[in-house]
Amino acid sequence: MRKPPYYAVIFSSVLREDAKEYGETADRMVELAAGMPGYLGIESARGADGFGITVSYWETEADIARWKREAEHRIAQDRGRSEWYLRYDLRVAKVERAYGMPTPTLEP
Amino acid sequence: MRKPPYYAVIFSSVLREDAKEYGETADRMVELAAGMPGYLGIESARGADGFGITVSYWETEADIARWKREAEHRIAQDRGRSEWYLRYDLRVAKVERAYGMPTPTLEP
Repeated sequence: MRKPPYYAVIFSSVLREDAKEYGETADRMVELAAGMPGYLGIESARGADGFGITVSYWETEADIARWKREAEHRIAQDRGRSEWYLRYDLRVAKVERAYGMPTPTLEP
Repeated sequence: MRKPPYYAVIFSSVLREDAKEYGETADRMVELAAGMPGYLGIESARGADGFGITVSYWETEADIARWKREAEHRIAQDRGRSEWYLRYDLRVAKVERAYGMPTPTLEP
């Protein structure tokens, strides 16, 4: 894994029960993010209650801004707000320290 | 919600299938963290595949260090490494920006 510092986008959300085409779009966004400059990795978990957290990792804040503006991603963001999420919180954070077991496993 | 800057501990992990007493301990750690100085909130999601992400939020890095050293938490950390996790990654990050819909919902 790349050593800190780098950036994390922490996105937590509650899905509506009737969120149509959410899964396909989420998969497509993961694929699309992975091709963006400065992408370092992504991890995602969602429980049966509909609450989920996705954290994506980026080299710089400029890379995050570019990803936010990406055309297909913007369409997905609009659908997220209008169709898929009951609520969400998004935080941009600078990763200062990282460690893991057995060794950090997130690879670009 | 408190405005940035504040700190996030991003903990991602894969649970062993035979993780005994993990759920009770995780619940107890949430309760214990909530009573620590500088605690701002916690959110957690785990999918059916065993991969989970927990993010806890703190006012300062000193608060995180104090929580890491807390006696009952240390015992849980030891059990995590030896009994519960196939792997984990832990990152300490400084939250610089936050927004949400309809409004940020994480309350201390």
